[in-house]
Amino acid sequence: MAVYTQVADDALAAFLADYDIGPAIAFKGIAEGVENSNYLLETPKGRFILTLFEKRVNAADLPYFMGVMDHLAAKGFPAPLPVKGTDGVALRTLNGRPAVIITFLTGMSPSKPNVAQCRALGAGLARFHDALSDYAGNRPNNLSQPAWSDMFKGRETAANELSSGLTDQINSDLETLAAQWPENLPTGVIHADLFADNAFFLGDELTGVIDFYFACNDALAYDIAICLNAWCFEDGRGEYNVTKGRALIAGYQSVRKLEVAEKDALPILCRGGAMRFFLTRLIDWTDTPADALVRPKNPMDYAQRLGFHRNAKGFADYGG
Amino acid sequence: MAVYTQVADDALAAFLADYDIGPAIAFKGIAEGVENSNYLLETPKGRFILTLFEKRVNAADLPYFMGVMDHLAAKGFPAPLPVKGTDGVALRTLNGRPAVIITFLTGMSPSKPNVAQCRALGAGLARFHDALSDYAGNRPNNLSQPAWSDMFKGRETAANELSSGLTDQINSDLETLAAQWPENLPTGVIHADLFADNAFFLGDELTGVIDFYFACNDALAYDIAICLNAWCFEDGRGEYNVTKGRALIAGYQSVRKLEVAEKDALPILCRGGAMRFFLTRLIDWTDTPADALVRPKNPMDYAQRLGFHRNAKGFADYGG
Repeated sequence: MAVYTQVADDALAAFLADYDIGPAIAFKGIAEGVENSNYLLETPKGRFILTLFEKRVNAADLPYFMGVMDHLAAKGFPAPLPVKGTDGVALRTLNGRPAVIITFLTGMSPSKPNVAQCRALGAGLARFHDALSDYAGNRPNNLSQPAWSDMFKGRETAANELSSGLTDQINSDLETLAAQWPENLPTGVIHADLFADNAFFLGDELTGVIDFYFACNDALAYDIAICLNAWCFEDGRGEYNVTKGRALIAGYQSVRKLEVAEKDALPILCRGGAMRFFLTRLIDWTDTPADALVRPKNPMDYAQRLGFHRNAKGFADYGG
Repeated sequence: MAVYTQVADDALAAFLADYDIGPAIAFKGIAEGVENSNYLLETPKGRFILTLFEKRVNAADLPYFMGVMDHLAAKGFPAPLPVKGTDGVALRTLNGRPAVIITFLTGMSPSKPNVAQCRALGAGLARFHDALSDYAGNRPNNLSQPAWSDMFKGRETAANELSSGLTDQINSDLETLAAQWPENLPTGVIHADLFADNAFFLGDELTGVIDFYFACNDALAYDIAICLNAWCFEDGRGEYNVTKGRALIAGYQSVRKLEVAEKDALPILCRGGAMRFFLTRLIDWTDTPADALVRPKNPMDYAQRLGFHRNAKGFADYGG
């Protein structure tokens, strides 16, 4: 949650003058996303989200993200559409920051996704991959395996403070991941951050996917691994809910069948997915002042998932 | 801005089952108010704000505030209406906290109110006072003159750190206020916190007043004094914009004529209004950790207003 940048009404009015959506009739900062400032904007033409990109997002990547949303909307995938100004340009500037207006999607993020929602999410992820299979943009995944050792450097003491002996386990995992990280799997555009708070449902139907600001080109099955980590573990414990995992994988395969190499790679991909979120949470955990209003998420949730993945023997352990 | 309490979707669904407004189809934490958690809630019946009252609000006062909103809405004043559950009760419990759903109002809070908006605000304030003239509830103003000396105690060093010699000035003001604070002015329900972020406009028309959680029974003219402090000074400077002040007072008097005693009392009431916000801001300033995400407002804005009020000779100095 964050509204870092305040937008004055006269600055907003000047900004909106370059669009065809009319003047603002309501405007409220919302607690969505953690990297950017987001506002709910209402005009006579409807409701929108105004996003100002804060410094953690690389401005050079923004055209790639805008293109992903345009492409998804053109394919009928339920993603927000970037609204273009009267000059045809969606990515603009407000208060000295890159800014974009996107359409508003209804739906609720599930606090504890159920099995049917996991199935719908799996199918939605495969449709997402399919819809972007002819997307021309390319952005490397800068949070993948080659980056992890450097991300852990200097955090060894912090990891042992979280749990005695954790640093040795992480170093061992990092060695295994470096040795076994799969190559030559089918690649494409992956969401790379499809947690439940980035998915909207009405009942068990997936009505929207948002927040494409980690999207990149990588192994498609790695995106499944990230979702299994995010959707199929019991909260705050390292316990894998194989019923949810089976539903997510079956949902995915109802749209796109996995290749044998992808199935075989799933345990190491899941271990990598857990490592990526363990490391970014560990960084946020150690870098956030103890008395800050926003508490970072506990990295131990992902350290516990790593424990499960270490012992996984194959695709079947995930419900495949 | 604040969303302190997270609401899980299943807790929300159970909460909404006691209303006739249908299920949630969108739900977003919003950055409105600083004392409570607020969510934008959409159902098939429309849009609402869900407020959870955090610990700074005294639960015993909530029926008074609900009654104020009911009364205003019944009189056609543009205030949100508390939505009642199927049992007829508006004030309910969610996540162990008092909670209420109120209707959503469109409109924009002006960042820099213009003269026409100050006039509309003045007229709106008088209509607010009129609408509540037959409201039966009573709540003393616990942030008025008798409280101020105690609020300053222990903050003398902090005040001098903000500005050398400020503590002596404040102590002198407190003595003057104790000696000259007016009695026997016309009283009624006052908003007591009608800053621009609690007022919505479309163009120059006042379309909504929100946030009644400081409302209390006190001198009506003290509410004007608070508004003059909040709406008619140049931001971050102690400069009074008498054109705006004249418009606000004229707007007020277009609905309710001020008595002579109220006009005579305006300088001391304005000095008191500035003292009240100086003190609460000073308290927030000294109690908030330096590296917290939400920065408190600088009390010096109100110390500078005190400087203006010290030199004011009468009603005419405010544009009366």
